[in-house]
Amino acid sequence: MELFSSLSPFFVAILGLLVAIILRGKRRGGPEKARWEESRPWVDEDLRDSTELQLGEGAEDDEWQGLEENLQHVPFSSERYPEDEMVKRSREFYELLNKRRSVRYISDEPVPREVIDNVIKAAGTAPSGAHTEPWTFVVVQDPNVKHKIREIIEEEEEVNYKKRMGEKWVNDLKRLRTNWVKDYLDTAPYLILIFKQVYGLLPDNKRKTHYYNEISVSIACGIFLAALQNVGLVTVTSTPLNCGPRLRVLLQRSLNEKLLLLLPVGYPSKDATVPDLKRKLLDEIRVIV
Amino acid sequence: MELFSSLSPFFVAILGLLVAIILRGKRRGGPEKARWEESRPWVDEDLRDSTELQLGEGAEDDEWQGLEENLQHVPFSSERYPEDEMVKRSREFYELLNKRRSVRYISDEPVPREVIDNVIKAAGTAPSGAHTEPWTFVVVQDPNVKHKIREIIEEEEEVNYKKRMGEKWVNDLKRLRTNWVKDYLDTAPYLILIFKQVYGLLPDNKRKTHYYNEISVSIACGIFLAALQNVGLVTVTSTPLNCGPRLRVLLQRSLNEKLLLLLPVGYPSKDATVPDLKRKLLDEIRVIV
Repeated sequence: MELFSSLSPFFVAILGLLVAIILRGKRRGGPEKARWEESRPWVDEDLRDSTELQLGEGAEDDEWQGLEENLQHVPFSSERYPEDEMVKRSREFYELLNKRRSVRYISDEPVPREVIDNVIKAAGTAPSGAHTEPWTFVVVQDPNVKHKIREIIEEEEEVNYKKRMGEKWVNDLKRLRTNWVKDYLDTAPYLILIFKQVYGLLPDNKRKTHYYNEISVSIACGIFLAALQNVGLVTVTSTPLNCGPRLRVLLQRSLNEKLLLLLPVGYPSKDATVPDLKRKLLDEIRVIV
Repeated sequence: MELFSSLSPFFVAILGLLVAIILRGKRRGGPEKARWEESRPWVDEDLRDSTELQLGEGAEDDEWQGLEENLQHVPFSSERYPEDEMVKRSREFYELLNKRRSVRYISDEPVPREVIDNVIKAAGTAPSGAHTEPWTFVVVQDPNVKHKIREIIEEEEEVNYKKRMGEKWVNDLKRLRTNWVKDYLDTAPYLILIFKQVYGLLPDNKRKTHYYNEISVSIACGIFLAALQNVGLVTVTSTPLNCGPRLRVLLQRSLNEKLLLLLPVGYPSKDATVPDLKRKLLDEIRVIV
């Protein structure tokens, strides 16, 4: 009693104010703090659902349409195949792509640069949010740079395996006879690092929004993989964990670019093997309504 | 002076404690709060850079390798083309895909289901984090369901245009003669909604991590677009803003699935037009090292 009776209105006010600030801070910071704590970058939970958009937050062109000014509209025409030809083409394209596998044993045989350039040009036809084309394909053929990349990746990978990965993970991977040593980073004639431009730079140095840049660049990567399979070359889709900044600096990419994927490209080596994976059946991935 | 002299050690302690709590809260909540306030779901800034992974947070299989137990490794072989044939195939594939455009005028002519199935099977050959194949392709051909989808999307779109989008946006879009009325949602013979499975469900009802599920599904979408172009069909890549949950419920997808993309598929209508966009040149998207 003595204690409270000694509270002057002045201090009651201060205490009330501070308590209010604390509660307000907790309420606002709360949900985000939770997300921060449970966030695991290799799961996409940290990509906010677009449905979380709040009134007034602004919005995007949901059809990924370009925003150039005074854009002309021109007639569109496309190849039209007879139905039986369509069915045949669709089946053959599936059969071609169904032979694609992620291959970790890549031969050092040289590959014509013109082929790589055409594969990248094909990837560059992908649609992108508001036609921002937010991708950069860095083609590394210099053996010294390839080796520097390998050193950076294996260094981080070793830490991943030894410190960052749970025991279950390490055991799973042991079973798969994989570790942090990646010969293909030296042997593959090309290492292709795909960067997403998280924003663009306008002439006045203002930032240009790159709508859905990660989805756009990933779609371009899908076309890249199809184009690669079409010419008989192999790769393994990799997302080097924690190497982004060091590789960005090594390759002198600007701050608006973040490494999304690294694809070693070449012919498979003679003794290449792949894990005996099965793919889901059509009925497991498709629903008819 | 009178004021401070009246501060008893007891209140000094309480005040100090509360101030400390506030500062601590600000420091911890600060960065996240900032991200929350500036967060715009259609920009991928909210996808945390994988380089932010902290020690002990765990990690992923950076090569997207399957995690099945006792997985056998089998010899891999692939088609090998002579160099001139490779160059030819790579050029022709680029030329085919370079004709692809996002088309918003879709004919109601029927398209063989077998073609759509093969296109989806091709998309299903995409690589995925730890071979989780985290995609569901919902093929909507029922005219009533298509119309319900249109009602949901146009309703949300109207709000986007009228309330959520900045004035600049609305003006940009006026220039492009686009609005929230989307006839193709009724006319296209198929609406294909691509859902990402943000996590899987194990027999024991535990959640299975789906590594990089959004990147994986987007890569599959890239292959889907290539397969569609290969048979002479058109679509427009769209990300219906704020419609995810309502469409998920309408199509009775489970809680672990989130709508990523909606693709109306069909032949282009006779009078189809497209904005006269140009694509970046090879030298603008490719860097040689």
